[in-house]
Amino acid sequence: MRVAVVGLGLIGGSFALALKDKNIASSVVGVEANAANAELALKLNLVDAVLPLAEAVEGADLVALAVPVDAIPQLAIKILNRVTDNQIVIDMGSTKQELCEIISQHPRRGRFVATHPMWGTEFSGPQAATADSFAGRAVVICEAERSDSDALEAVENLYFRLGMSQLMMNPEQHDLHAAYVSHISHITSFILSTTVLEKEREEEAIFNLAGGGFDSTVRLAKSSAETWIPIFLQNKYNVLDVLREYIHQLNIFRKALEKDDTQALKQIITKANEIKKVLHK
Amino acid sequence: MRVAVVGLGLIGGSFALALKDKNIASSVVGVEANAANAELALKLNLVDAVLPLAEAVEGADLVALAVPVDAIPQLAIKILNRVTDNQIVIDMGSTKQELCEIISQHPRRGRFVATHPMWGTEFSGPQAATADSFAGRAVVICEAERSDSDALEAVENLYFRLGMSQLMMNPEQHDLHAAYVSHISHITSFILSTTVLEKEREEEAIFNLAGGGFDSTVRLAKSSAETWIPIFLQNKYNVLDVLREYIHQLNIFRKALEKDDTQALKQIITKANEIKKVLHK
Repeated sequence: MRVAVVGLGLIGGSFALALKDKNIASSVVGVEANAANAELALKLNLVDAVLPLAEAVEGADLVALAVPVDAIPQLAIKILNRVTDNQIVIDMGSTKQELCEIISQHPRRGRFVATHPMWGTEFSGPQAATADSFAGRAVVICEAERSDSDALEAVENLYFRLGMSQLMMNPEQHDLHAAYVSHISHITSFILSTTVLEKEREEEAIFNLAGGGFDSTVRLAKSSAETWIPIFLQNKYNVLDVLREYIHQLNIFRKALEKDDTQALKQIITKANEIKKVLHK
Repeated sequence: MRVAVVGLGLIGGSFALALKDKNIASSVVGVEANAANAELALKLNLVDAVLPLAEAVEGADLVALAVPVDAIPQLAIKILNRVTDNQIVIDMGSTKQELCEIISQHPRRGRFVATHPMWGTEFSGPQAATADSFAGRAVVICEAERSDSDALEAVENLYFRLGMSQLMMNPEQHDLHAAYVSHISHITSFILSTTVLEKEREEEAIFNLAGGGFDSTVRLAKSSAETWIPIFLQNKYNVLDVLREYIHQLNIFRKALEKDDTQALKQIITKANEIKKVLHK
């Protein structure tokens, strides 16, 4: 399988590496608008070549879109305009409603498989790509019934060989769950970081004391604005819904602490502990 | 050195294991009010014996207090009432102002060294203890000038052999920094958990999708109420101060998202990214 990856950042670069590492792709070419990143991707051997979009698409059995989510819908249309019935297009973005709506009436909608591999790190750019990504995580496939069966099967097989388990959802379900389980975590980390940087004037203290649980809680605050602002905007209503609830629950905790209400604090923390049951470890 | 550890939970149990593992202690006995935990600690070989408090203190060169912070001050007084000038008492608690005030006028204050090893996990109880704890982290020593020089030296040497770097602070500084860098992270995790459990009715979705950064951000939400409520209450004013700022900054983010204010969102995230500079990795 010849693969073209559009966008050679953390996700696209890791996908390219993993496809080669597991011998899933015979060749992987990249498309990258940023010249420095294109050069770096070649230097790091993420892809065999970096080509202009039209050329990359023409020679590919599968085209994967790994650009920020605000760029995906129009790019998906442009590529669907060009592909034949033997080619497949997938995206790897963190939101799905906008994309699925935009491509819904395209005559070659069937060649598209909307996917969201649930993997990422707080780092970005080609230098952040790692071959041992994706394995052991879930991939969400949206509107599988709108994809041609051969395209769907090929993509399912590809993700299976990457070691991912598959979940089928409609785009509305996906964006709702993604807001609750992924997008809100990024906001709580970003704001934990800004708060601590605002209040804690002694950066050395942060560095020295960060063993106390701060590191893991704030890890996602290193994530890039370029990736995350489009996600928050595209999933605005779900994200705001969960964010408002989060602020509401924080205020309940704050008032309980203000009143030394040990019983209320205990109820909140005991409820919070239930997350044990639904996490992997 | 014969050590008595009072409280055989995560911290006390790990401390006992590490002392034996690194041949720092010739014997380690435990004191544990909870009979099931005492039995478990013996079964797991965390300690050589579990003894009543008076007996354990009498036979120890060093007594380490690893009970919840609301129990530490009075226990410290009781033990200082009994020790000789050849014995040393330390605590390992996450707050220091209350403790240091309570012991300040005790005739044997010099035998006490107030310490906070900045290590922990979200798990609790003797079963959570691990020998490879503490190493590579910082330990804060408060009011070192109030400890006898031989006691301070022995404790510094002990933590050095555990692989910890040392920081001197006064209790006020310690509690302020701990609120910013450790205590607030626990609150943001607890409330992220309650929010997601409230909003996300499909627990299976959490389980399946948690790869998207949720796991690490919510990890601390598994932490125990017994440990953390006393910490929040003892450090109430610092914790409320940073919590109010956190809620304030969340509201700024929320309003920016409501207005699609990309520039404001970018400013917030770019500022949040600066945490890279002050974290270890």
